[in-house]
Amino acid sequence: MSGRVYIFDTTLRDGTQGEGISLSVEDKLKIAQKLDELGVDYIEGGWPGSNNKDIEFFERVKSLNLKHAKISAFGSTRRKGAKPEEDANLNKILESGVQVASIFGKSWDFHVTKALETTLEENLAMIYDSVRYLKDHDLEVIYDAEHFFDGYKSNPEYALATLEKAHAAGADWIVLCDTNGGTLPDEIKEIVSTVCERIPAKIGIHAHNDCELGVANSLAAVQAGARQVQGTINGYGERCGNANLVSVIPNLQLKMGYEVISADQLRSLTAVARYISEIANVSMPINQPFVGTAAFAHKGGIHVSAIRKHPRTYEHIEPGLVGNKQRVLVSELAGQSNVLFKVQELNLDIPLDSEAARAAIQRIKALEHEGYQFEGADASLELLLREATGNLEEIFTVESFKIIVEHSSDRSGVVTEALVKIKIGDEIVFTVAEGNGPVNALDNALRKALEQYYPAIKDMHLADYKVRVIDEKNATAAKVRVLIESSDLTHSWSTVGVSPNVIEASWQALVDSMRYALIGKERIKTPSSTRPQLGIINH
Amino acid sequence: MSGRVYIFDTTLRDGTQGEGISLSVEDKLKIAQKLDELGVDYIEGGWPGSNNKDIEFFERVKSLNLKHAKISAFGSTRRKGAKPEEDANLNKILESGVQVASIFGKSWDFHVTKALETTLEENLAMIYDSVRYLKDHDLEVIYDAEHFFDGYKSNPEYALATLEKAHAAGADWIVLCDTNGGTLPDEIKEIVSTVCERIPAKIGIHAHNDCELGVANSLAAVQAGARQVQGTINGYGERCGNANLVSVIPNLQLKMGYEVISADQLRSLTAVARYISEIANVSMPINQPFVGTAAFAHKGGIHVSAIRKHPRTYEHIEPGLVGNKQRVLVSELAGQSNVLFKVQELNLDIPLDSEAARAAIQRIKALEHEGYQFEGADASLELLLREATGNLEEIFTVESFKIIVEHSSDRSGVVTEALVKIKIGDEIVFTVAEGNGPVNALDNALRKALEQYYPAIKDMHLADYKVRVIDEKNATAAKVRVLIESSDLTHSWSTVGVSPNVIEASWQALVDSMRYALIGKERIKTPSSTRPQLGIINH
Repeated sequence: MSGRVYIFDTTLRDGTQGEGISLSVEDKLKIAQKLDELGVDYIEGGWPGSNNKDIEFFERVKSLNLKHAKISAFGSTRRKGAKPEEDANLNKILESGVQVASIFGKSWDFHVTKALETTLEENLAMIYDSVRYLKDHDLEVIYDAEHFFDGYKSNPEYALATLEKAHAAGADWIVLCDTNGGTLPDEIKEIVSTVCERIPAKIGIHAHNDCELGVANSLAAVQAGARQVQGTINGYGERCGNANLVSVIPNLQLKMGYEVISADQLRSLTAVARYISEIANVSMPINQPFVGTAAFAHKGGIHVSAIRKHPRTYEHIEPGLVGNKQRVLVSELAGQSNVLFKVQELNLDIPLDSEAARAAIQRIKALEHEGYQFEGADASLELLLREATGNLEEIFTVESFKIIVEHSSDRSGVVTEALVKIKIGDEIVFTVAEGNGPVNALDNALRKALEQYYPAIKDMHLADYKVRVIDEKNATAAKVRVLIESSDLTHSWSTVGVSPNVIEASWQALVDSMRYALIGKERIKTPSSTRPQLGIINH
Repeated sequence: MSGRVYIFDTTLRDGTQGEGISLSVEDKLKIAQKLDELGVDYIEGGWPGSNNKDIEFFERVKSLNLKHAKISAFGSTRRKGAKPEEDANLNKILESGVQVASIFGKSWDFHVTKALETTLEENLAMIYDSVRYLKDHDLEVIYDAEHFFDGYKSNPEYALATLEKAHAAGADWIVLCDTNGGTLPDEIKEIVSTVCERIPAKIGIHAHNDCELGVANSLAAVQAGARQVQGTINGYGERCGNANLVSVIPNLQLKMGYEVISADQLRSLTAVARYISEIANVSMPINQPFVGTAAFAHKGGIHVSAIRKHPRTYEHIEPGLVGNKQRVLVSELAGQSNVLFKVQELNLDIPLDSEAARAAIQRIKALEHEGYQFEGADASLELLLREATGNLEEIFTVESFKIIVEHSSDRSGVVTEALVKIKIGDEIVFTVAEGNGPVNALDNALRKALEQYYPAIKDMHLADYKVRVIDEKNATAAKVRVLIESSDLTHSWSTVGVSPNVIEASWQALVDSMRYALIGKERIKTPSSTRPQLGIINH
């Protein structure tokens, strides 16, 4: 078995149907960029006929200059009894400026008569006209046969007739959808085989995970002749989600010998899956196949002694092939090589086997154990390594801070004040500021304290702020991890803070961000006449 | 296809190898009780040869008087070069007093020589002697062929020879293990078929989920002739987990027509899966197939209008068959039909086309525009609909709150205090409490105020807390959305708050959670002698 299998990613469309998944246009653009780097062939960006956010996405995605992936817009076949050229939904696809359209139509006679409330003949005409209309406008057309497997089981001849119409109208791909996710791998295999025999078209599969068989069904369809797999990163999607591409891709490539993405792209799989889970703000299950932090973690004593001798004894693949790594849960051995790599990258003047390097690694391990994560916080990691190796000048130190949030029935809304006391050189600087919230107030107060000494601070701003509960078992008493992304005129950096207290965690990340911003920046000796005002509480 | 398939649950043994899973003896007894009620045939309680906790479990489980399930103890074949009667591990199984033993041996030549460091012949003798020894003591013996599929691929004749030895020694079941979870369903099917032809024994399957194929592999083995499935509840287990019985059972029974458990027991599946996730203290993914809260949740407007007409259009099974239920999510993607569906579901006494219903929809749309999201906040939505339609008694009103967070250089860490003033009936209640963070402090203070009037509040706790920045372009001044999930003894609910201030957003969600918890609960008229203390600031 071999050959090329194409990946159609619908994280940005079907993925957002998942409960708790909500993506801004910014989020969608960041994800599209990553998907392109991963090497997927198609990125379904949204449904321009359904909302303005998706229209904005299609407009802005043009400026990303993707290297490989084609952007596809979603839509349905024309309305019953209308002409395609008068169909707003189809015309929105054309207006969105994409090269690829993916439109869905009905294959299940029950759906045609009960949900669509039209005749079987009109449905065939709707499929033909819609595909033809888009082909006449030179789009690549992917026809999604909704509920195909249920339709086939109910009325095979009619289900096949809908595909024949799409093919006759010129559809480039015909994708068989198990919309309700209720079909078993054997049925998928048998039905896809029949379709491949009957319809001389390129066939794809769109599976859902309602029976925990989304990945298995996708693989079964490929074995039966399908050459396009639709799915989402981490299996996001309505109900139990779509087929998880993060598992589909390595299974196809490493286990079944198909060509999907390059070996280098496959090595980015873990990073991409984790990045997208961060953007979507959905914590990745630690036991997620291939890419979870526990996917190659060994706990049992027997397993551990065996994997020391031969990793293959308890690992089905070499974890590095998908960018993951082995972990031994009793003695954390991971990470060391990454840290050493970083020390080298920063050009810190210390030998890799020195006491200082070892101390830095110990410190990082201890912090990771507390819940810090430096993968998404390069600047915090750099500060830590510089500090541990004596390569950091002190910019300022924190004396204290205080936050007061007051919500009164007799005042309009909430008032937040932050008091910050820091030491810059020999001077104590004490400021107060208001803000929209506690973190904003702290940001304002700290900025006010610093900018009279370091005018460069005016050029930097906070670009993103994320909060993640690390151990949700303890709910509001659980630890939280705050990630702050900051930018100045030329680059951006990320910092991290961890605490059971969201304010304290935010403060740590905020302080790191400003310390990082000011590395190597000039300190102004403020004229003494202006100094006293810093001690005065103002805002 | 039909017949009886036996379920062997190893949640208490293999399940506890999962990262983050740790069960006390008490926990294990509670789970064993539930598994028996669910109707599993075997419960693997632990490995008496490896630790004293498991020995205590086997002692105490005798007093549970299980109705159906047999308790099994785990162990390995005898040590190389020793006699079974001198093997402490095998003797511990006998001492544990179980009727069933499950012992594992090596099938993979590579493992025999590299991990076990013995000869292929001695391994065969170890298998024979160990099974024979346990059979001589009248136990039912389940022989687990570790790494069978990898072993078969490496050296089929040797792998089959190990099974023949177990069979010749009298093993009641021979279970083929895909220990590393790397085998694909097709290979499983082919190899299990061959084994069934060659070995005249009852065959079982033990699959892992490393390729996200644990369920598919279990089903494939049954199709090929296996009649015992080993797995764990919710798929707990080492690395990516074991085959998830919560998906295996309904697939076998509802989709493939096998007899597994009774229809009544199947209806308890959702409750059992959630109960065990509570005991294991692992939050259940909302999108878990069959039993997750999102497994039958509908978000897209098109889907919703269709399921109102005919549930079968977008549901692969009737959710009640596994004890789950349909939910309609209200979100930006959905239309008016979702809200109307919800009004109906809540049994609110208003016509769907009334002024009150329209006003509720307008209010929801306006709030969604501000960043609220009700798809993950059923309880907030219910409060809102009840309020809009005059179906809500007032439990308490908020007068004011105040939060002080102080981080001083001269005190250890951060101190957080919350002051809360609410009105219950005609009385003002003013409390203060400390907490790990501002939200925890507010939770503590509000709870203190309420519990003297509503003792029922003690039964509820916050189970999860999520923060999402809605529009990250404004960074720390951006709006945040807070989702809080709460539970009491019988069910769980979710609430939402939105504000640029994370404290205010959390407060809204917290207040909604407690209001919801107290709907219909009795208010105690606190004796007046105890009342004055409520006005005193204490914690």
